Amino acid sequence: MSAPATRIPFADLVNLLQRIFVRHGCSETVAATLAANCASAQRDGAHSHGVFRIPGYLSTLASGWVDGRAEPVVSDVASGYVSVDAAGGFAQPALAAARELLAGKARSAGIAVLAIYNSHHFAALWPDVEPFAEEGLVALSVVNSMTCVVPEGAQRPLFGTNPIAFAAPCAGGAPIVFDMATSAMAHGDVQIAARKGELLPKGIGVDREGRPTRDPAAILDGGALLPFGGHKGSALSMMVELLAAALTGGNFSFEFDWSRHPGAKTPWTGQLIIVIDPRLAQGERFAARARELVRQMEAVGVTRMPGERRFREREQSAREGVSVTAEEWSQLQTLA
Amino acid sequence: MSAPATRIPFADLVNLLQRIFVRHGCSETVAATLAANCASAQRDGAHSHGVFRIPGYLSTLASGWVDGRAEPVVSDVASGYVSVDAAGGFAQPALAAARELLAGKARSAGIAVLAIYNSHHFAALWPDVEPFAEEGLVALSVVNSMTCVVPEGAQRPLFGTNPIAFAAPCAGGAPIVFDMATSAMAHGDVQIAARKGELLPKGIGVDREGRPTRDPAAILDGGALLPFGGHKGSALSMMVELLAAALTGGNFSFEFDWSRHPGAKTPWTGQLIIVIDPRLAQGERFAARARELVRQMEAVGVTRMPGERRFREREQSAREGVSVTAEEWSQLQTLA
Repeated sequence: MSAPATRIPFADLVNLLQRIFVRHGCSETVAATLAANCASAQRDGAHSHGVFRIPGYLSTLASGWVDGRAEPVVSDVASGYVSVDAAGGFAQPALAAARELLAGKARSAGIAVLAIYNSHHFAALWPDVEPFAEEGLVALSVVNSMTCVVPEGAQRPLFGTNPIAFAAPCAGGAPIVFDMATSAMAHGDVQIAARKGELLPKGIGVDREGRPTRDPAAILDGGALLPFGGHKGSALSMMVELLAAALTGGNFSFEFDWSRHPGAKTPWTGQLIIVIDPRLAQGERFAARARELVRQMEAVGVTRMPGERRFREREQSAREGVSVTAEEWSQLQTLA
Repeated sequence: MSAPATRIPFADLVNLLQRIFVRHGCSETVAATLAANCASAQRDGAHSHGVFRIPGYLSTLASGWVDGRAEPVVSDVASGYVSVDAAGGFAQPALAAARELLAGKARSAGIAVLAIYNSHHFAALWPDVEPFAEEGLVALSVVNSMTCVVPEGAQRPLFGTNPIAFAAPCAGGAPIVFDMATSAMAHGDVQIAARKGELLPKGIGVDREGRPTRDPAAILDGGALLPFGGHKGSALSMMVELLAAALTGGNFSFEFDWSRHPGAKTPWTGQLIIVIDPRLAQGERFAARARELVRQMEAVGVTRMPGERRFREREQSAREGVSVTAEEWSQLQTLA
């Protein structure tokens, strides 16, 4: 039984997480970026990437697998192309270091791409794209992760959960944002189901012998996930490997070897972000047209837009504070 | 019963199709582009977009719904952005008119986008991206179509089949290419199943009352398709509407009204193509890494890469000619 949830002001949660990251080996800059990211997920009810992840972050930092003090090196490759060597650190500080350059190129050239490599991504992907939409840009990002998904037609896992995230501005409201694993379920959600002792729906994964299973523990214990949507999801996962690793210069999901870093948790791969400025050809019309699409989706019966639940949770958190269980809050304080 | 297939030299098929398109209202330029596209699909065994489509093309041309003599207007919007008004004609001639400008921008800026609007797309999407990969570029394209897919959680159809196509160079072999409808099945494949009187797998579509059905005729007769992969495929289909219509200035799949053009068959929407030059940051390494990914996919048991069947059929067609049934060949000759 979890203790009942308590409500914490967002700024207090960010400050606490930042102290934790600093205490466990991160620079002030990296700690601030990771703390804001993690607290935002918790605030938006995306609990599989909220404070639930802190023990994993600390474990991977303690193992020496990821460098919490890495300083990303930004390269201005071409008028639409930015590359960042994350220097073995987290992907989010690498994005933060290149963000203004990337957005400026998109505004000038109409489209720009950011290729991050030598990076660890352990967070949700929507926080990486949503801020672009808030400033009127369209953003698409992919990140590869670590071998745990069996390609369609294969016998053994190879791909990561390889999510795709997309964000677009929408007139008169929150941006349209989605973030989907190309696996049948996100890894964090399998972990949460395992902790709760819940059975999964059919078609999510296989056990260590490759047999279909509904037991999340069997998937985590040497088993593997399946792609969502059969061969189509598998093709998208392959595309993510090509864009996030081959194109950036990062590792494929199956390439890194953390066996000499017990406690390592974070995939050491790459990330690609494409940003388009719709205003160059369309002015403010794009956002108005996005609103029209939402209106028509609601007219045919869609009751919840992608990302909408997060925005609702965010509003509630702004009014009442961010929900954290008393147990989590107490644990976080001992870590700070 | 179909008559047994005959084998026709590719050039003869292109020439015949070109004469047909010219005779039915296309300019020489448009006819040449459509003929090469349609003959390539037939050559590659992609029969749902091969000569099977000719009656549909001729019907939509005869209806006055699409302009077979349209001259696309190319706008050089920014250093990474090209826009084309297809002028109510087909999308393929619009792409052809902007292709060199687009590829040149990608090679210079690292990434470039082509936004086509006021266009009709009635073909497979892979022929639009594959040529970029053949010259070392990575290409991603989306096109929206016409209302026939029920968004996840909705009661009525809104989206089109909204395919996504991707192509990337791969060292020492054919490019990696996929082309997937974001519906559970492509519309052309439903039509083919209906013609053959075959039942579909479960989860493909609903009848006119919104009830699940395995009868392709019931889907085509006032019914609708479902997205592939539930809410994830539905989110991708929504993204395609935003990129192919809202961003380009084209119509959403639900916006055009062809009721005054009996026989109209072609969706009047938009198309987006993003092209990246991996050589700016990676030199020839990208193609070598793509080959490594293919090698590892084969090592875990993948026996057929996306697009591989088409390349095999293409080789056979080069040796033996393009397979067309005697009935189709005879019908085509009466149309020329």
